[in-house]
Amino acid sequence: MTINPSVRQQAIEHNLECIELGKKIGSTALTVWVGDGSNFAGQTNFRRALENYLESMREIYAAIPDDWRLFIEHKFYEPAFYSTVINDWGTSYIAAKELGEKAFCLVDLGHHAPNVNIEQIVSRLIQFQKLGGFHFNDSKYGDDDLDAGSIKPFQLFLIFNELVDAELNKLPKFNPAYMLDQSHNVTDPIESLMTSAVELSRAYIQAHLVNREKLEDAQRKGDAVMALAALKLAFTTDVSPILATARQRNGGAIDPVSVYRKSAYRSIKAKERPAQIGVSAGII
Amino acid sequence: MTINPSVRQQAIEHNLECIELGKKIGSTALTVWVGDGSNFAGQTNFRRALENYLESMREIYAAIPDDWRLFIEHKFYEPAFYSTVINDWGTSYIAAKELGEKAFCLVDLGHHAPNVNIEQIVSRLIQFQKLGGFHFNDSKYGDDDLDAGSIKPFQLFLIFNELVDAELNKLPKFNPAYMLDQSHNVTDPIESLMTSAVELSRAYIQAHLVNREKLEDAQRKGDAVMALAALKLAFTTDVSPILATARQRNGGAIDPVSVYRKSAYRSIKAKERPAQIGVSAGII
Amino acid sequence: MTINPSVRQQAIEHNLECIELGKKIGSTALTVWVGDGSNFAGQTNFRRALENYLESMREIYAAIPDDWRLFIEHKFYEPAFYSTVINDWGTSYIAAKELGEKAFCLVDLGHHAPNVNIEQIVSRLIQFQKLGGFHFNDSKYGDDDLDAGSIKPFQLFLIFNELVDAELNKLPKFNPAYMLDQSHNVTDPIESLMTSAVELSRAYIQAHLVNREKLEDAQRKGDAVMALAALKLAFTTDVSPILATARQRNGGAIDPVSVYRKSAYRSIKAKERPAQIGVSAGII
Amino acid sequence: MTINPSVRQQAIEHNLECIELGKKIGSTALTVWVGDGSNFAGQTNFRRALENYLESMREIYAAIPDDWRLFIEHKFYEPAFYSTVINDWGTSYIAAKELGEKAFCLVDLGHHAPNVNIEQIVSRLIQFQKLGGFHFNDSKYGDDDLDAGSIKPFQLFLIFNELVDAELNKLPKFNPAYMLDQSHNVTDPIESLMTSAVELSRAYIQAHLVNREKLEDAQRKGDAVMALAALKLAFTTDVSPILATARQRNGGAIDPVSVYRKSAYRSIKAKERPAQIGVSAGII
Repeated sequence: MTINPSVRQQAIEHNLECIELGKKIGSTALTVWVGDGSNFAGQTNFRRALENYLESMREIYAAIPDDWRLFIEHKFYEPAFYSTVINDWGTSYIAAKELGEKAFCLVDLGHHAPNVNIEQIVSRLIQFQKLGGFHFNDSKYGDDDLDAGSIKPFQLFLIFNELVDAELNKLPKFNPAYMLDQSHNVTDPIESLMTSAVELSRAYIQAHLVNREKLEDAQRKGDAVMALAALKLAFTTDVSPILATARQRNGGAIDPVSVYRKSAYRSIKAKERPAQIGVSAGII
Repeated sequence: MTINPSVRQQAIEHNLECIELGKKIGSTALTVWVGDGSNFAGQTNFRRALENYLESMREIYAAIPDDWRLFIEHKFYEPAFYSTVINDWGTSYIAAKELGEKAFCLVDLGHHAPNVNIEQIVSRLIQFQKLGGFHFNDSKYGDDDLDAGSIKPFQLFLIFNELVDAELNKLPKFNPAYMLDQSHNVTDPIESLMTSAVELSRAYIQAHLVNREKLEDAQRKGDAVMALAALKLAFTTDVSPILATARQRNGGAIDPVSVYRKSAYRSIKAKERPAQIGVSAGII
Repeated sequence: MTINPSVRQQAIEHNLECIELGKKIGSTALTVWVGDGSNFAGQTNFRRALENYLESMREIYAAIPDDWRLFIEHKFYEPAFYSTVINDWGTSYIAAKELGEKAFCLVDLGHHAPNVNIEQIVSRLIQFQKLGGFHFNDSKYGDDDLDAGSIKPFQLFLIFNELVDAELNKLPKFNPAYMLDQSHNVTDPIESLMTSAVELSRAYIQAHLVNREKLEDAQRKGDAVMALAALKLAFTTDVSPILATARQRNGGAIDPVSVYRKSAYRSIKAKERPAQIGVSAGII
Repeated sequence: MTINPSVRQQAIEHNLECIELGKKIGSTALTVWVGDGSNFAGQTNFRRALENYLESMREIYAAIPDDWRLFIEHKFYEPAFYSTVINDWGTSYIAAKELGEKAFCLVDLGHHAPNVNIEQIVSRLIQFQKLGGFHFNDSKYGDDDLDAGSIKPFQLFLIFNELVDAELNKLPKFNPAYMLDQSHNVTDPIESLMTSAVELSRAYIQAHLVNREKLEDAQRKGDAVMALAALKLAFTTDVSPILATARQRNGGAIDPVSVYRKSAYRSIKAKERPAQIGVSAGII
C-alpha cells in the first residue's frame, strides 16, 4: 500500500497471518483499515497509490475463505493529513467492486467529511449490495470515537431506520456486522460499552416503531411534514422501559451501570490483575 | 427524479428537447444537474429516489447521440437541505457506470463537503475513466461560485497537476470539458470571466512546469520534502509574462481587463440594449 | 456599513424609521442583521469595515428607547462569500460591548461554522450578560433554515438546557427573545410553524425535567457517564402527552396539524385572497 | 481549570515555576494552552469551567513580570471532543480582556472550525489590541500541524497582508511573536523547519510587495476586481531569488535543504547521540 514494496509485502503477510488465526478462532470476516496516504501534495501519486493498494488487497482477498467476508474501512483523514488512499465510501465501494463478491464496505461513523449525510451513504451501500457493517461511535469534530448516540442520537436513529427498512424488505446481501469502535478517555470503558449498547438497542427498537405504511404514504404524497412526523413519533417514544424489560428477560440488568458499580467488578479485577509498570493499563 | 411520475416525465422531455436543440447547434455533450432531494428525514426514500433518477436518466441516455457524452453533475447540498440524490462523486460514478460508456462525471469545484480533497477525486475519476469535465469556480464556504483561483489558487494548481499528469500519460478516455460556472455579484461578469480564464491558464501552465522526473524520483524515495518542492517550484514561478505574451501572439490583450475598461464596451452596449423594466438585467 | 457613506446613511435612516414604526406598534427591540462583507480578498479592509459598521450602529443605538434592546445578529457567510463584517459571536459580542447596555447578541442557529458547539456560545453570551435572543431553525449544511428540531433535536435540547439553567439560577440580564427564522420550501409554512413551536416546547420542558442536583453531583465527581445520563434521561422522556394536555388546557389543539388540515383554513383563505399575478404568493 | 481544585492548583504551580525558569533564561512571554473541556454533554458546566479557568489564570497573570506578556491559546477541539474551555478567538479575547493589559491572544492556524476566515480573526485581534502572536503551521482537516504554507499558501499570504498592514500603519500594541508549531511525521524535522521558515519569509515579502495605494483606491471605489488583482500581483510575483539573495547576504544558504543534506548533519549527529532504547527519538 505504501510506495515501498517490502513494506507492502509485510502488510500482506500480516493479513494472511490474521486470516490463519481467524480460522482457528472461528472468525468469518477480516477488516482491513489502511491509514496509508500522504501529508503533502506530491508525496504520493494518487493513482499509483490506489493501484498498489488494490494489488496488495487482491493477494489478501485470494486468501479469504469462501464463507468469510472482507471488510474495507475508509477514513476521511488521520493519520494521513493531506490524502488517504481509502478516504471515502466512493473509493471503498470501487475497491470492494474490483475485489469481488466477498468484499464489502465498513462504515465507521466518525470517518466522514463534516456535515455528510451518513444515513444516505448507508442506504447507497445497501442498495448496491456492498454494506459490510459498522464501527459505531459518535463524534462532533473529527474521528472523536465518543460513545454511540452521545452527540447525534437522531442521526443514529436515522441510520437504523435504513437498516430496519432493509431488514423488512429482505434486501439481498444485507447482513451487516455490528462493532463498537470507541476511545474511552474520561469514562470507565466498561460503562461506556454498556451505555453504547443500550443506545444502539434504543435506535434499533425505535426504528422498528416507525409506521412504515404511514411513512410511505406520506412519501407518495410528497407530504414532508407527515413523513418527518412518522419518524419523530418513533424517535420520541420512550423505549427505555421495554429495553429494560428485554434485558431482564434475557438475564441482564435493568440498570446495567448501577449494577456494575455496585458489583465493584473493576476494583476486584484491579486487585487480581495489578497494573504493571511500563505497560499501558488503560483507565484506573 | 421527483416522486411524481408526471414531473419526472416533464424533466425527461425537457432533456430530450435539449438534445434535439443541441444537435442543431453542434453540441456534443449534455450536462444533467438535478437538485432533487429532500429537506427533511423521511421525506423521500433514498433508494427509491435513486432508482427513479436512474430510470429517468436511462431514457435520456438512450437519446444521446453516439458521438456525444452525457455529464452527470453531483452537488453536496442546495437547493435540497437534508439529502440530494446525486450528492457526491461516489453516487455520480455509480450512476455513470450504470448508464453506460457515454456517461461521465462532471466536477463542480463548489459541490463538495468541507475540507474534501478535490484533486484526489479528479484523479479517481480519471483513473476509472469517468471524468467528463469541470465547472470551474472557487469557494470558501458552500457553493459560493466565486471567480476561479480567487480563494484557493494552490488547490486549482493541484487539480491541473492531475490533469496534466493524465495528459502526459495519455490516459484512456481522458478528454475533459472545461466550463466556468460562477456567479458574479460584485464584479462586472465580463471582467470576472477574463480574470478567471487567466487563472485557469496560469494553473495549466504552472502544472506543465512541474519537473515530473524529479517528482517521481522523490515519490519513489518517499522524499516528501522534495516532492512538495517540485510542485511548489512550479507554483511559485511567475508565469504572468508568458501568459501575456501568449495572449498577444494569439491576437489577444496583454492586460485584458484594462483594455476592456478602456474600450467602454459595457457602456456602449448598455446604450444599445437598454434594460427593460421587469426584466432581470444583471449587473449595471 | 458598506464603503459608500451615502449607502450607510440610507441604512441608518431605514433603521431609524423602523424604530419610529416600532414605537407605534409597541415593539421593544430592534434586530440589525447586516449581510455586508466581501466576496474577494482585498475588496474591503476588515478593520475599516468594522469601524464603519460601529460608527453607523452608534447612530442607530442612540435612537433606541431606554426600555428597548438592540439585537446584533451575526452570520458566518452569505450573502458575502469571502468575509462578513459581523461573522461570529466574538465580533457580535465586541460590537454589543462597544455600543452599550442596550445592545445584545442574537443567535441564529444556522449562522455558525461547521461543527461549532452552539450551546456553549449560548452559555458564553449568558455568562457575559449579552444574550439577546434567538432565531430558531435547524440546518445540516449552511444556513438551511429548516424547521426547528428537525435535524439536530439533541442540540436543541442542549441549548434549552443552558437557558433553563440560567432561568433557574436567575442570572442577571437573562431575558432572551424567541423567534423562528425559517424558510419553508417543501411544506405548508403554517404547518412548519406549528410543528416548530411544538419542538421548542418539547426541548424546553425536557430541559426542565433534568435532575439538576444529580447533574451537578456528577459534575463535581467528574462522572461523565452519570452527567450525560442525567441529560439523556430527560431527553428520552416522552413529553408529547403533557405538551398536548397543556395545549388543550390553553384552548389549543391536541394535534395541531390534523386540526389545521381538517379546518381547510388554507383553501378557504386562498379563495378569499386569490394570488395576484406578479406577486409572490408563497407556497400554494 | 478542571473541576478538581487540587489539579488546578498543580497547573497553577507548574506555570509559576515556568515563569521562574523563564526569568532565568531571559524569556519575555508565557503561553498557556489548556486542552481542558469535556467529551460529553453535561460533563462540565460551561460557565463554571470558564470561571475556574479565569480564577486560575488570574493567579498566573499576577506572577507575570511587567515586561512580559501572557499568551492565551485557543483550540477548537482535541483533546476534548465535546467542548473546550478556550475554544475560539471570542473566548480567548474575553479572557485576555478580563485578565488585563499583559494578556494577549495567540493564534494557531490549525485551531479553528472548518472554513473560518483566519485572516479576519487576525485583523480583529490587531484592531482590538490583543494579538499576541502565532503558532504557524498548515492544515487541511483538523489540527494537522503540517508545514507552514504547504496546504493553503494564499491564506498564509493574506494573514501576512494583515500583519504588514498593521506594521505600516504602526497600530498600537502590535508586536506579534512568531512561532512554528508543527508535527513532522514524514519528513526530517530540520528540513521541514527550514522550508517553513522560507514560506513565512515568502509570505511576508510578498505582503510587502502589495501596492497599498492601488489597493485602497480599489477599496474606495468598490472595485473588487482591481483590489484582488493588487493582492494577486504580489502573491504571484516570484520572490524566491530575492529570498535566496537575502539568505546569502546574511551568511545563510541559497538552497538550505540541499546544503543541509550535503552536510550530512543528521547522520553525524545520529552517531554522536545514538538513540536509546525506550526513549522516543523522533524521526530517524
